[in-house]
Amino acid sequence: MRILFVGDVVGSPGRDMVEEYLPRLKRKYAPGLTIVNGENAASGKGITEKIYRAFLQAGANVVTLGNHAWDKREIFDFIDDAKNLVRPANFPEGTPGKGITYVTYNQYEVAVINLQGRTFMAPLDCPFKKIDELIAQAKQRTPIIFIDFHAETTSEKQAIGWYVDGRVSAVVGTHTHVQTADNRILPQGTAYISDVGMTGPYDGILGMEREAVMKRFLTSLPVRFEVPKEGRTQLSGVIIDLDEKTGQAKKIDRILINDDHPFFE
Amino acid sequence: MRILFVGDVVGSPGRDMVEEYLPRLKRKYAPGLTIVNGENAASGKGITEKIYRAFLQAGANVVTLGNHAWDKREIFDFIDDAKNLVRPANFPEGTPGKGITYVTYNQYEVAVINLQGRTFMAPLDCPFKKIDELIAQAKQRTPIIFIDFHAETTSEKQAIGWYVDGRVSAVVGTHTHVQTADNRILPQGTAYISDVGMTGPYDGILGMEREAVMKRFLTSLPVRFEVPKEGRTQLSGVIIDLDEKTGQAKKIDRILINDDHPFFE
Amino acid sequence: MRILFVGDVVGSPGRDMVEEYLPRLKRKYAPGLTIVNGENAASGKGITEKIYRAFLQAGANVVTLGNHAWDKREIFDFIDDAKNLVRPANFPEGTPGKGITYVTYNQYEVAVINLQGRTFMAPLDCPFKKIDELIAQAKQRTPIIFIDFHAETTSEKQAIGWYVDGRVSAVVGTHTHVQTADNRILPQGTAYISDVGMTGPYDGILGMEREAVMKRFLTSLPVRFEVPKEGRTQLSGVIIDLDEKTGQAKKIDRILINDDHPFFE
Amino acid sequence: MRILFVGDVVGSPGRDMVEEYLPRLKRKYAPGLTIVNGENAASGKGITEKIYRAFLQAGANVVTLGNHAWDKREIFDFIDDAKNLVRPANFPEGTPGKGITYVTYNQYEVAVINLQGRTFMAPLDCPFKKIDELIAQAKQRTPIIFIDFHAETTSEKQAIGWYVDGRVSAVVGTHTHVQTADNRILPQGTAYISDVGMTGPYDGILGMEREAVMKRFLTSLPVRFEVPKEGRTQLSGVIIDLDEKTGQAKKIDRILINDDHPFFE
Ligand SMILES: [Fe+2]
Ligand SMILES: [Fe+2]
Ligand SMILES: [Fe+2]
Ligand SMILES: [Fe+2]
Ligand SMILES: [Fe+2]
Ligand SMILES: [Fe+2]
Ligand SMILES: [Fe+2]
Ligand SMILES: [Fe+2]
Repeated sequence: MRILFVGDVVGSPGRDMVEEYLPRLKRKYAPGLTIVNGENAASGKGITEKIYRAFLQAGANVVTLGNHAWDKREIFDFIDDAKNLVRPANFPEGTPGKGITYVTYNQYEVAVINLQGRTFMAPLDCPFKKIDELIAQAKQRTPIIFIDFHAETTSEKQAIGWYVDGRVSAVVGTHTHVQTADNRILPQGTAYISDVGMTGPYDGILGMEREAVMKRFLTSLPVRFEVPKEGRTQLSGVIIDLDEKTGQAKKIDRILINDDHPFFE
Repeated sequence: MRILFVGDVVGSPGRDMVEEYLPRLKRKYAPGLTIVNGENAASGKGITEKIYRAFLQAGANVVTLGNHAWDKREIFDFIDDAKNLVRPANFPEGTPGKGITYVTYNQYEVAVINLQGRTFMAPLDCPFKKIDELIAQAKQRTPIIFIDFHAETTSEKQAIGWYVDGRVSAVVGTHTHVQTADNRILPQGTAYISDVGMTGPYDGILGMEREAVMKRFLTSLPVRFEVPKEGRTQLSGVIIDLDEKTGQAKKIDRILINDDHPFFE
Repeated sequence: MRILFVGDVVGSPGRDMVEEYLPRLKRKYAPGLTIVNGENAASGKGITEKIYRAFLQAGANVVTLGNHAWDKREIFDFIDDAKNLVRPANFPEGTPGKGITYVTYNQYEVAVINLQGRTFMAPLDCPFKKIDELIAQAKQRTPIIFIDFHAETTSEKQAIGWYVDGRVSAVVGTHTHVQTADNRILPQGTAYISDVGMTGPYDGILGMEREAVMKRFLTSLPVRFEVPKEGRTQLSGVIIDLDEKTGQAKKIDRILINDDHPFFE
Repeated sequence: MRILFVGDVVGSPGRDMVEEYLPRLKRKYAPGLTIVNGENAASGKGITEKIYRAFLQAGANVVTLGNHAWDKREIFDFIDDAKNLVRPANFPEGTPGKGITYVTYNQYEVAVINLQGRTFMAPLDCPFKKIDELIAQAKQRTPIIFIDFHAETTSEKQAIGWYVDGRVSAVVGTHTHVQTADNRILPQGTAYISDVGMTGPYDGILGMEREAVMKRFLTSLPVRFEVPKEGRTQLSGVIIDLDEKTGQAKKIDRILINDDHPFFE
């Protein structure tokens, strides 16, 4: 089975890239399952129901989130009914939404998990303990487990990767908005990458207007960050091949589409 | 002119990789200048005079540092006399050592600067203000300016990159120990990569024994981190081509050598 | 000379306490100078010109600020013209407003300085370096120097206190909104307290609605904090006596007015 | 019932104060129960078995800890057998030691709990969830529950205080090493203080040599902190009176003994 994952989609430039390239990527790679991180899809902060539905329409099977999950308040209105939307599983018990969902492709069930780190982030429940729990639960149904680990530091990301190596099919990092070049199959068969990178403006800072971000660093004054409306864009993703019988990954390749890395059909 | 930069060398496994591959990389790429980040070269924390000299012996022209610069106390004994060693320039005035040095290749002078970020790091002087100052100083002597920006977050790294775009030849990030795939030439001619990645153990976490790091995350108890003595290793670097008359970069390529990415002469 | 300082005034409950008790405190203590921290005066976040003027009207001679200085955007419209308003002096050069001002009482000039810490706060310029610079400047005019050090940690606050002991009349901490009991005269004659505490709602958390703050801790979800409109209130302050010839402090007493500590004329 | 609590004892100067004043405080106040925070008792970092036993010998009934609990490695050898020693209860399951213990005075059982905050501290389990669990457990045995909440920020401390108001006898904060002046009985009958303060050197910074701490702030270089061997000392504590039938607190008074606040028998 082949899984396509698209990293943090930022604002309308990111959504436009998804609309444009998801069909082309599907033609080229023919993934069985497509997952999109949508935590920044609504003007850089959060997601709306309309955008969530548009992702499904565009070909995503599951949408994952992260620390920005809650930035648009309407999330609380629709998350409990959004079957294919997952928010970080280690938010405390009682948090709206869910951290794991199951989708089926060709009779094979895939567990898709969203998890969040704690280093330099909010103090959630322990992601290591939580992932043990979720893996045990998912294993009842399927050996194919996919994790979007939304975290800041490379140490916490690598630690989770090694911690679950051999127990899940893939751990892909999100949140830093920069694709890393460390995609690999860990020794026990888990596909890993520290960060898939961002889908949106190519000439911003993490996808936001760069003048505002630089002003913030230079002045330490409050600055409002907006997604630039114009300019070049990019899409960041990975393609993972796995054995659907064992859940073991065989290959993880990076996808990066921008002016410096044009897409070839 | 071509510059080879090797990212954070961790302990003896990292130093062994430098000894083994620097000659081979030089044969293959024929760089005019070789720069090595050595902040973790002595058992993962800091650097000794002996190791600094061994780097020069192995073919490095300049050694850069970072937040771990001061971990081995003997640094204070030799840093002021180490002509080709730079520590982050934005430590406060009066800090031992220097943050900029000049080396000459084929009559061309190159300014090599080490700078440190502040987000989720120690509260140093403003790196944006400091880099303005150092660029102004370096421009008196040469248009070729190379910056190792040692920082945690992708936002601060991209912000510095865009801030100096067109004013320096290259900004290469270090510190996260994971190579990023965002190497590019920014619009005004500055070569940029968010992080060059780490040189050392391939199966550790950031180059340290992974059991210890995982134990730390699982228990929140104090754990001593050691560099694994055995096991597979990697080297991370970049090769930058620039116009020595204008200082403008033309190309920045990633180098990653490990079992999954074997080296070809 | 006697100085009255009132700690972080929070929202309208805090402003009401100032209006009600400043006249009574002045009758009781007859301070030569009254200083009020107003960083939370406008609905808990920032300050408006109207509120600033109301403080002066109510009897304040100088208003100090802190990290919340910039929360109401109109601050940028009036801060440069507000002679008796100081914001943290160690914001970078070019920041609107000023960090030191001079007021005169009975022919004696007093330098009033606002300074901000960096531990667990924004990465400003070094407060230690900045205070050296400001003390040198102020000493040209007067030996009476008063510092509102707005900082999070007790270590940074005590460090500043000891660092300037004997060089200034007083260092009073603000920002934590809880009065400390460590008011003392340091050995070289500087009055010191780690935090003066907050003026506003007595039954909130730091002066904000406590249900919202608890919800934030319990859920890690975004929660909007408001100043409670009703309920009991308190005023926190200090009274400092100093020798106007030498600038040396002789005494620093705490003031705490609330239902558990009623005010006696 | 009356409980005497002594805040973070730092090094031998702190231990000397305990030896000297515990008998005198007991004569003066006649507490039924004495609790001492010992997280910094061994040279400022951690605790040894010998010191733990010395505290019991000197008259303590229970010793509480905090983030420094693990700094002396021998803690792992004796904590499981130390009946009257508690470490923060919200360390993850499987952590050596325990977070709650029960002591009996005059037929009345008292539950003593140690809990740690998460803001600007290590990412432990949620202290709010954990305290609910521990209160439920303790209520099976006794209405008298005492909590040492070891935390950095005033917001998290006040939040815990209000969260458990009416369910426990007392919440006393520790960790900042500075006594706060906000001791009060909350409306539902819980005694509260944000921080009890430190027992040890009076002229250091948080009890450590002040030159070293100032050097650290001034240089951002690594500095070793030691407890000063000589100089003036202080003791910080609180005295709490409660109704042993209901567990409700009636009174909480601060104790501060130093050169500026001499002890009167
Ligand atoms: Fe994101
Ligand atoms: Fe994120
Ligand atoms: Fe490093
Ligand atoms: Fe580093
Ligand atoms: Fe405040
Ligand atoms: Fe503040
Ligand atoms: Fe302590
Ligand atoms: Fe502590």
